Amino acid sequence: MGDFLLLTPGPTEVPKRVLDTQSVPMIHHRTKDYQAILERVNRDLQRVFCTAQPVLTFASSGTGAMEGSILNLLRRGDKVLSVSAGKWGERYRDIARVYGLDVKSYELPYGQAVTPEAVGQALKEHADAKAVLLTLCETSTAVTHPVKDVAALTRNSGALLMVDAISGLGCDELRMDDWGVDVVVCGSQKGLMLPPGLSFVAINERAVKMIERSDLPKYYFNFADTLKALKKNDTPFTPAVSLVRGLEEALKMLLEEGMEQVWARHERVARRVRSEVSAMGLKLFAQRASNALTAIVMPDGVASKDVIKTMRDTHKVIMADGQGELQGKIVRFAHMGAACTDAAADRGLTAFRDALEKAGYAAAARR
Amino acid sequence: MGDFLLLTPGPTEVPKRVLDTQSVPMIHHRTKDYQAILERVNRDLQRVFCTAQPVLTFASSGTGAMEGSILNLLRRGDKVLSVSAGKWGERYRDIARVYGLDVKSYELPYGQAVTPEAVGQALKEHADAKAVLLTLCETSTAVTHPVKDVAALTRNSGALLMVDAISGLGCDELRMDDWGVDVVVCGSQKGLMLPPGLSFVAINERAVKMIERSDLPKYYFNFADTLKALKKNDTPFTPAVSLVRGLEEALKMLLEEGMEQVWARHERVARRVRSEVSAMGLKLFAQRASNALTAIVMPDGVASKDVIKTMRDTHKVIMADGQGELQGKIVRFAHMGAACTDAAADRGLTAFRDALEKAGYAAAARR
Repeated sequence: MGDFLLLTPGPTEVPKRVLDTQSVPMIHHRTKDYQAILERVNRDLQRVFCTAQPVLTFASSGTGAMEGSILNLLRRGDKVLSVSAGKWGERYRDIARVYGLDVKSYELPYGQAVTPEAVGQALKEHADAKAVLLTLCETSTAVTHPVKDVAALTRNSGALLMVDAISGLGCDELRMDDWGVDVVVCGSQKGLMLPPGLSFVAINERAVKMIERSDLPKYYFNFADTLKALKKNDTPFTPAVSLVRGLEEALKMLLEEGMEQVWARHERVARRVRSEVSAMGLKLFAQRASNALTAIVMPDGVASKDVIKTMRDTHKVIMADGQGELQGKIVRFAHMGAACTDAAADRGLTAFRDALEKAGYAAAARR
Repeated sequence: MGDFLLLTPGPTEVPKRVLDTQSVPMIHHRTKDYQAILERVNRDLQRVFCTAQPVLTFASSGTGAMEGSILNLLRRGDKVLSVSAGKWGERYRDIARVYGLDVKSYELPYGQAVTPEAVGQALKEHADAKAVLLTLCETSTAVTHPVKDVAALTRNSGALLMVDAISGLGCDELRMDDWGVDVVVCGSQKGLMLPPGLSFVAINERAVKMIERSDLPKYYFNFADTLKALKKNDTPFTPAVSLVRGLEEALKMLLEEGMEQVWARHERVARRVRSEVSAMGLKLFAQRASNALTAIVMPDGVASKDVIKTMRDTHKVIMADGQGELQGKIVRFAHMGAACTDAAADRGLTAFRDALEKAGYAAAARR
């Protein structure tokens, strides 16, 4: 299956340098060797998250870290403002509801981005809100919400800004400390170029202060214990050693390139994909496009399923269909992490154009 | 670091066949290829767990699955009987307490095993108990509790038998269905011969029935959702794809050998280690010894730390110190999973004997 190109919005391609770390013999986690790895990893995570704050690592999918951020930073009954315009914003909202928070849900049509004005208005109406839940890259629609502008509002309010950056981090610019984002959640299998299985939460001082007042029960995703262990380059529970070793290499790769260059590469490749797709006469779904992936609206009479099948069977290129109500209607063409190169975009565009033509849409003619 | 031999009670050695699966290119989890892998994995997990019941897989450490079993099978205020005689029994108890269960704690001195009679008495005193929490292999003391005999009592009671088999499964005999164990929790980095990062919970029909009445909030570790997805060879959240592919290979290895042969190998190697250590004039810590590891009491004047250091520095053999109150007092010599071979035991015994001698204890002379 190795000659397939994964242009899916996670898991995405894992670079050879990272893959090579996965098959080295196991080491024990309560050793100086592993502590030294963790020390480097924790330091490099801060650089990649653009923060001087601690970044907690868990063995789980990104959803686990989202849940952890709710569990540890909020109290039962706390008012939170949830912004959603897609499946992943809804997930954060749903987790908050499961834990009995007083969720004020701001739901926009799929494909739209929230405006800072709307969040400002919501913060005025709910001055007692303890948090705003937002998504950096809404992977279901390829929208990026204006995190920087929202942070400019929340940083002067009583509400934490908690950002699901699972698929956006390392693709869309995100400057946690500079912008004043309080909580950044991430997963391993997107911009961080790793296999799935690790999740991350960076929390600033304002967020750390909320841990003590939280009354929601937790054990595995306990931030206080994890923070305490982190100071000794340790973890409360057995870490996913091999994935953490891969993380060390992936972070090194990102920092060798430099985060500004990484973001610029994503912007450049994303612009190119959007421009070529537009030149085919096709509509982009996202009102405010993320650089992590492009959501392409299928023309009348073309089902995304068929286009995806041709790309896979004929070109060995894997892209994703829409989720939920968007299934069959859009193709999600990811250019994330290690799959964000001109060569990968070329192969993706060639496959996409051919698949559209085979589905009866003369894309090439409209260029 | 690859020429070290890990005789630690997890993570333990990962076989070459499994390591090789870790560096193959990433595949996407919402594909027929991955579904086919998951179908084989789910079937083989049942064989290894000796059950016809579903075995749920999570991306987390074993503790996550322990927490999941409490969260999904019990209600706030439910009475549970916790049996503990070491750190891991205490962990199960502590998780139950965090979630507001009415925990009746039966605590034995470290090194002892519970008697079925004591559990029978506790079940009589608390006929309304909803669960008994027990540990197959108490890794902190190298004791195995009499799971089979306790199951003979719980299967005719109103209480589920929930067994933490994280380090015991694949080492100590455990026949879930035949014995009538209701819940079996496991982790990947012990008898299953994988890197850490996956956890498992097998639940029988009696346990599945408890899911509906549970009122504890959960999201990531949601058994109902996981069971529903499992029926379609899917998972609610992105699985740890690479570790699951390693799992496929590790399960295949276990089943090629056969579970009875795997247990017999552990019993044979464990007996040999215990016998050689006893012949050195040393005391074994466990009253009822697990076949997963041997806990060796240090003679007067010998600190386990020094023995462990010599083994590591001179022989490249890694063993573990005692935990908590046992730190400095015992050496834990694991013979788990892929490290359970005569060759590994030989190397471990040679290293151990030499380290003891260097610490001033003439082990060889007493053979």
